[in-house]
Amino acid sequence: MNTILQSATKTVTIGAKEPFVIIGEKINPTGSKKLGKALSDRNFEFIKELAIRQTAWGADVLDVNVGQPGVEETSLIVDVVRTIQSVSDLPVCIDSNDPLVLEAGLHEAKGKPLVNSINAEDKQLQRILPIVKDRGAAVIGLTIDDNGIPKTPEERVAAADKIITRATALGISIEDIIIDPLVLTVGADNQAALVTLQTISMLHEYFGVNINLGASNVSFGLPDRPTINCAFLPMAIQVGATCSITDPIKLGSLLRATDLLLGRDQNSIRYLKYFRATEKLRNLEGEKV
Amino acid sequence: MNTILQSATKTVTIGAKEPFVIIGEKINPTGSKKLGKALSDRNFEFIKELAIRQTAWGADVLDVNVGQPGVEETSLIVDVVRTIQSVSDLPVCIDSNDPLVLEAGLHEAKGKPLVNSINAEDKQLQRILPIVKDRGAAVIGLTIDDNGIPKTPEERVAAADKIITRATALGISIEDIIIDPLVLTVGADNQAALVTLQTISMLHEYFGVNINLGASNVSFGLPDRPTINCAFLPMAIQVGATCSITDPIKLGSLLRATDLLLGRDQNSIRYLKYFRATEKLRNLEGEKV
Repeated sequence: MNTILQSATKTVTIGAKEPFVIIGEKINPTGSKKLGKALSDRNFEFIKELAIRQTAWGADVLDVNVGQPGVEETSLIVDVVRTIQSVSDLPVCIDSNDPLVLEAGLHEAKGKPLVNSINAEDKQLQRILPIVKDRGAAVIGLTIDDNGIPKTPEERVAAADKIITRATALGISIEDIIIDPLVLTVGADNQAALVTLQTISMLHEYFGVNINLGASNVSFGLPDRPTINCAFLPMAIQVGATCSITDPIKLGSLLRATDLLLGRDQNSIRYLKYFRATEKLRNLEGEKV
Repeated sequence: MNTILQSATKTVTIGAKEPFVIIGEKINPTGSKKLGKALSDRNFEFIKELAIRQTAWGADVLDVNVGQPGVEETSLIVDVVRTIQSVSDLPVCIDSNDPLVLEAGLHEAKGKPLVNSINAEDKQLQRILPIVKDRGAAVIGLTIDDNGIPKTPEERVAAADKIITRATALGISIEDIIIDPLVLTVGADNQAALVTLQTISMLHEYFGVNINLGASNVSFGLPDRPTINCAFLPMAIQVGATCSITDPIKLGSLLRATDLLLGRDQNSIRYLKYFRATEKLRNLEGEKV
């Protein structure tokens, strides 16, 4: 099953037989004071730089989150989406829980954007799904229900089922629903990654839907987090994950290597092309990377 | 199914529910002129250093190969095994195709050593299996038959079946047979890694045997080989690989992270202990790593 996203000029296909899709995570002020300040100051040069840089490093889609205290998000998202689209030809993913912000961002987005995210809480489904449907967007559904993040794969699959049932009842195509099975840190529970891997397998088998990963949570609180994240992603992709909201600069090579190993890169062309392109970027960027 | 190896004082268990076992690959002159010269000169200080260093970096077993032109291997293997055992308490893996070298090395090895390797060719099975049986050793069986490396998973499983059948007929316990499904480079064939991954799955399901990986071949001829190797190992472990002849210095962290993610490290104790121990080593070794 393929999810199609589009910018004004470009189509991105997410699917189990396609190369893994990277949704660049860096336009999000959570954890970045510099970006927070740029957003408050409406300094769009820094946002342009983030968009250009992630595009150059192989992002397929750009996530856009402008949420932080003291900004008027509804107008800001419009200006930020416009700014991003002026320098990058990638589809965008509007990242907010606020219906007004989502509507404004989706309206400004060209082509067919993605929404990040809904979950399986009744209130959320009622508020957000009609917006997704009206805009003809695709949407990421988190397996969180009214009681929080379920512990077992079966309960997470049930939450996904609820999202899929409600969305399709409203006329949203199942192809436009991407499920995120969530991952908690193995630092707190040594079964946490296994629960997510098993949820991915089940989602892939039962529904055939696309599956998104916010993979870096898995290593929260542990030392040498990049190594844990590097071990987790290939295993998740092997069992059915098809896209991730992540850092293309840190993980672009690993993800292309995984595609190559899984037979999704005829004659290693994509892997070799990426290596050559990023070798130049590494030299140009020097210490920054 | 567990394979038990032993040194004079230490027991190593290889099994699907155990942490992944690293067989340190560095005492092998292939590709190391410095070690080749040390072996020719019978300079055992350098060999001691390699044994100590791999032990410190978390190898569980040490592979020992002394094969190179112009050395009398049968006596050399005895001295090298003795040297290694004088500085490391790990079980050894005697790495040779020559029955006389194997016999000599196995005789000197304390505890229960491993043999690297046999394959499914009739001549090899006839010559090597009785030596393994007489010594009470464990053995790695490569899925190579009289026609070379088979292309399909089914043919590789048939080669493994032949090795297992012949070995068990001779009285070798199936627990003492570790199958290596072989991996060719994805640079030449984009199905190469998939064939190996599928072979691992089938071997794990059909026979339940332990499975060894010589993982670095997968990236031969491609740039940024470490990234490809890093993506391959977690996927291979997820489907059933239980040990690898590899570099503990480069891959020790990744392999412990994979164990952690697969629920084989209660409270992250092993991962955290390794991180702290190798952090010190990194500081001590500085540029060397």
